[in-house]
Amino acid sequence: MKHFLSINDLPSLSMALQEIQSLKSNPNRFRSIGSGHTLIMLFFNASLRSRLSTEKAARLLGMDVITLNISEAWKLEFDLGSVMNLDTSEHVIEAARVLSQYGSILAIRAFPNLENKARDKSEWVLRNFVKYATIPVVNLESATGHPLQALSDAVTIEENKNRIKPKVVLSWAPHPKALPHAVSNSFIRCMQLLEVDLTITHPEGYELDPEITKNVPIEYNQKLALEDADFVYVKNWSSYSSYGKVLSKDPAWMMTLDKLGKGKLMHCLPVRRNVVVEDAVLDSDSSLVIQQAKNRIFAAQLILKSLIENC
Amino acid sequence: MKHFLSINDLPSLSMALQEIQSLKSNPNRFRSIGSGHTLIMLFFNASLRSRLSTEKAARLLGMDVITLNISEAWKLEFDLGSVMNLDTSEHVIEAARVLSQYGSILAIRAFPNLENKARDKSEWVLRNFVKYATIPVVNLESATGHPLQALSDAVTIEENKNRIKPKVVLSWAPHPKALPHAVSNSFIRCMQLLEVDLTITHPEGYELDPEITKNVPIEYNQKLALEDADFVYVKNWSSYSSYGKVLSKDPAWMMTLDKLGKGKLMHCLPVRRNVVVEDAVLDSDSSLVIQQAKNRIFAAQLILKSLIENC
Amino acid sequence: MKHFLSINDLPSLSMALQEIQSLKSNPNRFRSIGSGHTLIMLFFNASLRSRLSTEKAARLLGMDVITLNISEAWKLEFDLGSVMNLDTSEHVIEAARVLSQYGSILAIRAFPNLENKARDKSEWVLRNFVKYATIPVVNLESATGHPLQALSDAVTIEENKNRIKPKVVLSWAPHPKALPHAVSNSFIRCMQLLEVDLTITHPEGYELDPEITKNVPIEYNQKLALEDADFVYVKNWSSYSSYGKVLSKDPAWMMTLDKLGKGKLMHCLPVRRNVVVEDAVLDSDSSLVIQQAKNRIFAAQLILKSLIENC
Repeated sequence: MKHFLSINDLPSLSMALQEIQSLKSNPNRFRSIGSGHTLIMLFFNASLRSRLSTEKAARLLGMDVITLNISEAWKLEFDLGSVMNLDTSEHVIEAARVLSQYGSILAIRAFPNLENKARDKSEWVLRNFVKYATIPVVNLESATGHPLQALSDAVTIEENKNRIKPKVVLSWAPHPKALPHAVSNSFIRCMQLLEVDLTITHPEGYELDPEITKNVPIEYNQKLALEDADFVYVKNWSSYSSYGKVLSKDPAWMMTLDKLGKGKLMHCLPVRRNVVVEDAVLDSDSSLVIQQAKNRIFAAQLILKSLIENC
Repeated sequence: MKHFLSINDLPSLSMALQEIQSLKSNPNRFRSIGSGHTLIMLFFNASLRSRLSTEKAARLLGMDVITLNISEAWKLEFDLGSVMNLDTSEHVIEAARVLSQYGSILAIRAFPNLENKARDKSEWVLRNFVKYATIPVVNLESATGHPLQALSDAVTIEENKNRIKPKVVLSWAPHPKALPHAVSNSFIRCMQLLEVDLTITHPEGYELDPEITKNVPIEYNQKLALEDADFVYVKNWSSYSSYGKVLSKDPAWMMTLDKLGKGKLMHCLPVRRNVVVEDAVLDSDSSLVIQQAKNRIFAAQLILKSLIENC
Repeated sequence: MKHFLSINDLPSLSMALQEIQSLKSNPNRFRSIGSGHTLIMLFFNASLRSRLSTEKAARLLGMDVITLNISEAWKLEFDLGSVMNLDTSEHVIEAARVLSQYGSILAIRAFPNLENKARDKSEWVLRNFVKYATIPVVNLESATGHPLQALSDAVTIEENKNRIKPKVVLSWAPHPKALPHAVSNSFIRCMQLLEVDLTITHPEGYELDPEITKNVPIEYNQKLALEDADFVYVKNWSSYSSYGKVLSKDPAWMMTLDKLGKGKLMHCLPVRRNVVVEDAVLDSDSSLVIQQAKNRIFAAQLILKSLIENC
């Protein structure tokens, strides 16, 4: 593994899940593996879990960590050949190469703008850093993927499943703002690699990228979709076909205890209570959201450890 | 001690003061006690001394430190049962629980809004974190208290007192903005536990919370109040009865060398020169403000050390 | 060396360049020299290279690092005797003294405002910190100088020169904004101490401070200036005589491959592509800009090491 940009960069997901669980049971086992290495984390967007869990993971490996909000540095240019006489001060070509002089691993959070579909789909920001960086790049949520979250989600399912092939439902929820598809995309990609029975449910018009969903069944009737579900991953996303648009805020799609039944709730957080998921679900024993957040540490630890070992 | 939210959380103030002085004389004595522990510092407001002295203290104990400005993460919701379809993205319930997965101790700065008296008095932000966090919480200045400052103040008095029961005066000063009561509250609470002769002086209308001041004498005549004072703690606060209002900016209340006499000046900093205290006082040998700031390190070190030992 | 504010603070530039190259060849040699020491970095302005390379250097020496954007603390007052009843909350007198309690070395970035020439020339911000701090101060780019950049530049020239006395040209370039003179000033100061043949070229009206340029030849014809140049340092600055004004944005002054000839390109970064330097130059083997950025680590390491040893 040269970079960790997508779930598909993992040589073996099942092996990774085992190693993450092993790290979780003994997080201090590799305290000196990262000694002398520096993780640079670069944030174009807000973060709580990614920022803290990845730093925690790096420290558990003995790494130094430097966190930089891009707003503390220079506004970056990404277009090749552009005449930079407007508001951008530094080109990603220089930024990526320079950061590569100061760190061993570069972790980046860069959300989509949800306006230019082709640009978002091309992973414009992340791919430009990968192109010019000379050190491994880790995706802390990009335009189209959030693989560290998906890894944590998969481990959480492993830890809680009661049957060999659990039924997993990805259930769209309303939200006041237009949100990215990254979490859903990576979750789907990840579930496709596991022995689970995956269904997606959302209002019509909210179909995700068919290149990602492939043959995963889509059930527009949420109630039917949720029947006998073991794990219900609730998440909002904006329309993919009417790119970046909010087509519905229908509160009937909010997850409730009644709908969840005997299923376990999953969500990547932050979650808007009583809009995306009702209080009663989040406050119940059926919620796995805190466990998911905790597993972010060990997912990041595995990825950083693997990249250090490859250096 | 489970959390450090108030001076009153200390099992023994006099013991604490001794230990702080002992740490100050040998700050490297417990270099490995915090190894493997992470302090998370969460800032809702500006900070210089709290931010740096607490990080310094944590490093002296071998802890890792992660500092997060809430503006770098998500706008938090604190109301129970709210339908989160406006500007808040994450509820304190999840935030506190998640932060508890990543750190051993959570230190929080959250000023009052000075608009909703009941909410401020209930320590709305801090108490919500305490309610949902599963790790110890440290108060880096909350709506109504700043106990690490008060601890440093008390040590500074110990270090400089020339008689067994020194006369201490808390003297209100003018300020262009409406300021919180936190520093004054904690200082008063702390002084009440020590063998000092405490007087408060301020213009009428500036009476602090009577549940805190209790039977501490209030002298509206600043000159009379300052007579024979050993320590003069100068501080502005907004009105408590006319909650959050600036009732006076009377420059006659500014501390001057003439008024200070043989007393020692104390202030928590930052201090507005020639508004709160005149230059001549701050630049004189009578000023203890830098010593107070330095003692913040050892006060924080004691608190972090105690919380780690209790873990 | 008590502080590192200017290239002229170095006891010997040639010795410094040798030591920087030695550190570069073995950056882990002094891993424990800074143990127990804390570097405080204070930023009044944006930074990428200074922020990361200096932290990296400090970590290589075993130091703790605390980074503070002044926007996270209090707006500072610098005028002596001012009545602070406006927007500044803390005076540099207190800030510098307090920071000196928490760290061993204080590194500061404070750009000029380019409005008040006398104030900028006096190094108003940096000199005030030096005046009141009780620990060594390091210049991370001030109103009139950027000595860590100049040190890195000089080392880069040492690493790449092919003749004993190379021809070095500082070539002005257009830029949409008014930029400081700091990088150019320090570069000139540094080159004056080395065995190089230095020429400055810029449009008329862009003469730098004659107290700095002294007898360095100025050639207004860029083509003539660049003839047989070994190193071409491209940089924009605003007018010094018409202080802070942009007198020209003439694109004919942009550096091109054609103009560069067999010379090597140098620039401190960030660089606006196709405004200051054309893509073809930055993407060619003639560009040393990434090497300059890398050398920032070892220049900072030397300075921090020297200051620690003097403590």
